[in-house]
Amino acid sequence: MHKIYFTPGPSKLYYTVEGHVKNALKSQVSSISHRSKQFENIYSHAVGQLRELLNVPGEFEIFFTSSATEVWERLIQNCVENSSFHLVNGAFSRRFYEISRDLGRDAVISEVEPGHCIDPSETNIPESVELIAVTQNETSTGVAQPLEDIYALKDQHPDKLMAVDAVSAVPYIDLDFNRIDSLFFSVQKGFGLPAGLGVWIINEKGIEKAKSMQRSGLSIGSYHSIPSFLSKSGRHQTPETPNVLGMYLLGKVAEDMLSKGITQIRKETEYKAALSYNLLENHPLMEPFVINPKYRSKTVIVAKTAIDSKKIIDKAGEKGMVIGSGYGQFKNKHLRIANFPTHSKEQFEMLADFLNEYSHE
Amino acid sequence: MHKIYFTPGPSKLYYTVEGHVKNALKSQVSSISHRSKQFENIYSHAVGQLRELLNVPGEFEIFFTSSATEVWERLIQNCVENSSFHLVNGAFSRRFYEISRDLGRDAVISEVEPGHCIDPSETNIPESVELIAVTQNETSTGVAQPLEDIYALKDQHPDKLMAVDAVSAVPYIDLDFNRIDSLFFSVQKGFGLPAGLGVWIINEKGIEKAKSMQRSGLSIGSYHSIPSFLSKSGRHQTPETPNVLGMYLLGKVAEDMLSKGITQIRKETEYKAALSYNLLENHPLMEPFVINPKYRSKTVIVAKTAIDSKKIIDKAGEKGMVIGSGYGQFKNKHLRIANFPTHSKEQFEMLADFLNEYSHE
Repeated sequence: MHKIYFTPGPSKLYYTVEGHVKNALKSQVSSISHRSKQFENIYSHAVGQLRELLNVPGEFEIFFTSSATEVWERLIQNCVENSSFHLVNGAFSRRFYEISRDLGRDAVISEVEPGHCIDPSETNIPESVELIAVTQNETSTGVAQPLEDIYALKDQHPDKLMAVDAVSAVPYIDLDFNRIDSLFFSVQKGFGLPAGLGVWIINEKGIEKAKSMQRSGLSIGSYHSIPSFLSKSGRHQTPETPNVLGMYLLGKVAEDMLSKGITQIRKETEYKAALSYNLLENHPLMEPFVINPKYRSKTVIVAKTAIDSKKIIDKAGEKGMVIGSGYGQFKNKHLRIANFPTHSKEQFEMLADFLNEYSHE
Repeated sequence: MHKIYFTPGPSKLYYTVEGHVKNALKSQVSSISHRSKQFENIYSHAVGQLRELLNVPGEFEIFFTSSATEVWERLIQNCVENSSFHLVNGAFSRRFYEISRDLGRDAVISEVEPGHCIDPSETNIPESVELIAVTQNETSTGVAQPLEDIYALKDQHPDKLMAVDAVSAVPYIDLDFNRIDSLFFSVQKGFGLPAGLGVWIINEKGIEKAKSMQRSGLSIGSYHSIPSFLSKSGRHQTPETPNVLGMYLLGKVAEDMLSKGITQIRKETEYKAALSYNLLENHPLMEPFVINPKYRSKTVIVAKTAIDSKKIIDKAGEKGMVIGSGYGQFKNKHLRIANFPTHSKEQFEMLADFLNEYSHE
């Protein structure tokens, strides 16, 4: 039986992916050279469609890594000589902070309890910090940092690089790239693609930082340093043999999303989120984990359950629906539900019906 | 028209891959959590099949990266504090050397002209070197370093780590892991899989080196440091959300190769190589680029052409066969032909017929 994955990444594949994979096999995409014209077309198609879908200005470059986890490392290596600052709302923003420490940087943390969100007016960012890391959508807790907070922080610190982890928020969020310096995500969440590809978008200021670190004789890595990416990206190529199939699929899905319309996708996301939070607010056994509605993620909905969440997950599984368990310490206390573009209104209504019926143990 | 890719990676997919991809879609492999039991089964299946196929002893760990290029970087980061030594036979072994330099190490090079192979008895490896890097099969020139050379070098330098890049030689080569410390490759060559996955095999001595560097307070990277890999590999998991589909396919293809039999695969590889070199030695317009038969790769066959090789490649293309062009400076002077397990004897005979007929401009 084909199950519906509501897990927050990997999740249900975008509904057009299966067809694209079959076409990729037919046209032998996985056999072509990554130095061929055919590959360059796949590369520039993916970049072009992403640029249009996410409204990325020309002064930003788009690079391909193997995961968003890799981008955490590359951002620190390339853009932080001494100190980074991390707004930590949960496990994934914490991991970004730890990577900066692993790389020997002076990483400064501003952390709140899970389910809460940092008020940027209460953070104290030292002058020496070079990069501010914000996880716009915390997949572990379902907390979302409002974009206005991010812009306000950038306004207060225009000299620092603003790096936004939007891993489970794209393509839903309508971001103004002119007010940040870097955005990154992986494809197995909002884009509904097989895992194994990360996307790193960064502007001239971030690129210049890497170049100046390199000029100072600092090591900024090797094949995936920004100058190494740039040495190939101008020709629509990558430094290594990349995940060609993943790049092909990303271009195709971004194109499909463009023809559906990003406004329509956003509207549907909001409808499904409203349906879900409304249900949770009125449910005898569940409530939204994030108390303040202003901080509730539209794309990763986390419910606190009065009973062992595994019971609910198992029951949903019997009906062909896979719901995510809580993250880490919340494993048996939460449900996590992805609300991505691939999840239809009808599928959410089916999920809502199931949850509404599940009103006692 | 379905073409036959004889290019040396990416190459023709292993003939069972298409079926496995379809099964992966059916069983929703790309939607499962990388922290689930289902994923752990995929992981341990891939490791188990590889271990059996390549005869990897228990004291070696098998890690998954995104490419062999990544392994170059991780090996230097994790296992070289000051100095690495590189036997350079072509463009790819040179790239490994450059990565060590990019990472600020003192990289020592012993280089020969393209098409030749270093005689290890003539190399002078400084005492301070911690790791010796050998590219067993140079995909750019078709030169293969005999395994006996590698074992001899290790015997002379038992204290140093011996790292073998076998990117386009596995699973053909029958390596004695007890006489090296690390082996690595990517999957889009001999395994005939879509690109986007590297395999890094390393023994206790290499692992201990990384741990001791970490204890000394040196940075050995972050999510893909050896200790970080180990913190997850014991549970058959990876630090990041990996290329799950690639790992699934690798396990399946390794299983297929095991049921075919590695002895049979090796025998067929040798038959196809003999056919090809015999043809080249008697051809009016081509000859083997590697003069000394002892150094000729069985898996990447490089021909020097008396005419512009593009003409031959274009003509082959019309017949549905894709032959690789020369690498770098040899672009229009060489043909590169992959002889991987997916290439059948019949396909090689067809290629030979074409090349034999192509006897004048």
